[in-house]
Amino acid sequence: MKKLINTPERLVDEELAGMALAHADLIRVEEPNIIVRRDAPRKGKVGVISGGGSGHEPMHGGFVGLGMLDAACPGAVFTSPVPDQMLAATKAVNGGVGVLHIVKNYTGDIMNFEIAAELAGAAGIEVKSVVMADDVAVKDSLWTAGRRGVGGTVLAEKIVGAAAEKNADLATLAALCQKVQDNVRSMGMALTSCTVPAAGKPTFEIGDDEMEIGVGIHGEPGRERRKLATADEITEALAVPIIDDLPFKRGDRVLAFVNGLGGTPLIELYVVYRKLAAILDGRGITIARNLVGSYITSLDMAGCSITLLRLDDELIRLWDAPVHTAALRW
Amino acid sequence: MKKLINTPERLVDEELAGMALAHADLIRVEEPNIIVRRDAPRKGKVGVISGGGSGHEPMHGGFVGLGMLDAACPGAVFTSPVPDQMLAATKAVNGGVGVLHIVKNYTGDIMNFEIAAELAGAAGIEVKSVVMADDVAVKDSLWTAGRRGVGGTVLAEKIVGAAAEKNADLATLAALCQKVQDNVRSMGMALTSCTVPAAGKPTFEIGDDEMEIGVGIHGEPGRERRKLATADEITEALAVPIIDDLPFKRGDRVLAFVNGLGGTPLIELYVVYRKLAAILDGRGITIARNLVGSYITSLDMAGCSITLLRLDDELIRLWDAPVHTAALRW
Repeated sequence: MKKLINTPERLVDEELAGMALAHADLIRVEEPNIIVRRDAPRKGKVGVISGGGSGHEPMHGGFVGLGMLDAACPGAVFTSPVPDQMLAATKAVNGGVGVLHIVKNYTGDIMNFEIAAELAGAAGIEVKSVVMADDVAVKDSLWTAGRRGVGGTVLAEKIVGAAAEKNADLATLAALCQKVQDNVRSMGMALTSCTVPAAGKPTFEIGDDEMEIGVGIHGEPGRERRKLATADEITEALAVPIIDDLPFKRGDRVLAFVNGLGGTPLIELYVVYRKLAAILDGRGITIARNLVGSYITSLDMAGCSITLLRLDDELIRLWDAPVHTAALRW
Repeated sequence: MKKLINTPERLVDEELAGMALAHADLIRVEEPNIIVRRDAPRKGKVGVISGGGSGHEPMHGGFVGLGMLDAACPGAVFTSPVPDQMLAATKAVNGGVGVLHIVKNYTGDIMNFEIAAELAGAAGIEVKSVVMADDVAVKDSLWTAGRRGVGGTVLAEKIVGAAAEKNADLATLAALCQKVQDNVRSMGMALTSCTVPAAGKPTFEIGDDEMEIGVGIHGEPGRERRKLATADEITEALAVPIIDDLPFKRGDRVLAFVNGLGGTPLIELYVVYRKLAAILDGRGITIARNLVGSYITSLDMAGCSITLLRLDDELIRLWDAPVHTAALRW
């Protein structure tokens, strides 16, 4: 295992310490390992929080700041955060008008966010939760009942965060987040496995001439193991099932998001984006907005994912709204 | 070799096509493979261009836009661009008051930028060139006479671009770029080799328990091959030679830049940043600004580099000035 770490046990704590030092203008890190927007709580603003296992950086901690999340709860690597973290984050961002939990669909995340929501409710904080489950690769997996939550979560956090910044109320934000979920679909693929630091060896074995289509962000199995293919063939293998699932149709406007999984350099992502644009163009689907980069990763996994979100004027306006976080800024 | 590409021969063309599609609001891509700011040339503004081999993305093409570069010339992977590219870029950004070439110190880049500058001069365009050579690892290498140009180039492009945006004249910009060079030092390290697509195999062999301290951005040998160490030890091994070289002294304010080499995920870079901050704090050096992410890469190499730039009020003001490019934006 070759990583820039000290020990697996200290990795998340030390990463958070680094983030707190690098982004003191945006965030503060508090016990028990929560990343909170520096100016939270803001009276009269709904708090928007998310969380999940570490190892997917910059998600979610890199999305805390103006126009996106108010707090993030990072668990241990690929491990759900505990209810205490979600509860502490909920309290830390409570401006008196409720808190929205954006939850990726993994069994542990769902369970712990539910417990935290109950505890918050008992403490007098209204909480609504929306579950992101945008991965079309598999319906159920070892880690989930139903579809996994992946790249659509990044887009939901940006869009919902923008509306929250304009003081939309809790019910409106929950409906908006559900609207994103209803219009977003994703799929990923891996060229290599990731290596969880505490395990010290690759999560799965994969041949030098193989790739995993439909891989999950923890290295969960996908739809199929195939022989290595070209970038164009890979892009097609991801894009077509995504398009057919919603389905995205001629005349749709979309946000096209090409995401690197941590070990893949940017130069390759633009090759994928080029082919994705051609596929969408061929089907009469217009890319109205795009995002190319590594925003939801799987440690050092080489590979990419594609996410498409069907847009309307409201979603475009919210996507374009100002954001100032460590990882997204405009 | 596992990469998201079609063929090695088409990689750069297809990447540029993807960039042109993704960032049509910022750039245009023209023959012979140059990335030009969409609104160039701007009359009365000095054009600022850079270039070098591909494989270091987002550098340089991702830095074309408001407040940074007016054009970038990407060569083949790890291969200098040809003088025709630099000449075309120089002409494309010529607003009538001269063009600055920011050149990383590699023999091929130096030679080809010199030829292009002569040709531009013959065409009536005044050109000044500044050579970036900030890598403290080795004095001469296979690819260079003198020190290699690395991470300091990113900072120079941002700072000089900000001044150019305010219509500073050519001599002022050249002096400013030289000031950045005089105050910036870098060093990198690799956990793994990169793989050049056309070669199809790793550039160098490295054991599972080894790392290369002082590696170059093309996988050139560094200062020494060592046994794998902790992130803290690695950070120390990079930071101390950098600090001692300038030297950076008690009371200095610096921009601390922790850069990923392409195959290293963000979570690890924050662990390095945390230790770097502690080392600087221990020496009475203040981090006034920072940058953490993968901005000058070596294809899929796992590893990182550290760059320190001594700041004064002028450099801070220019660093903070607005920038809107594919890879840096605020």
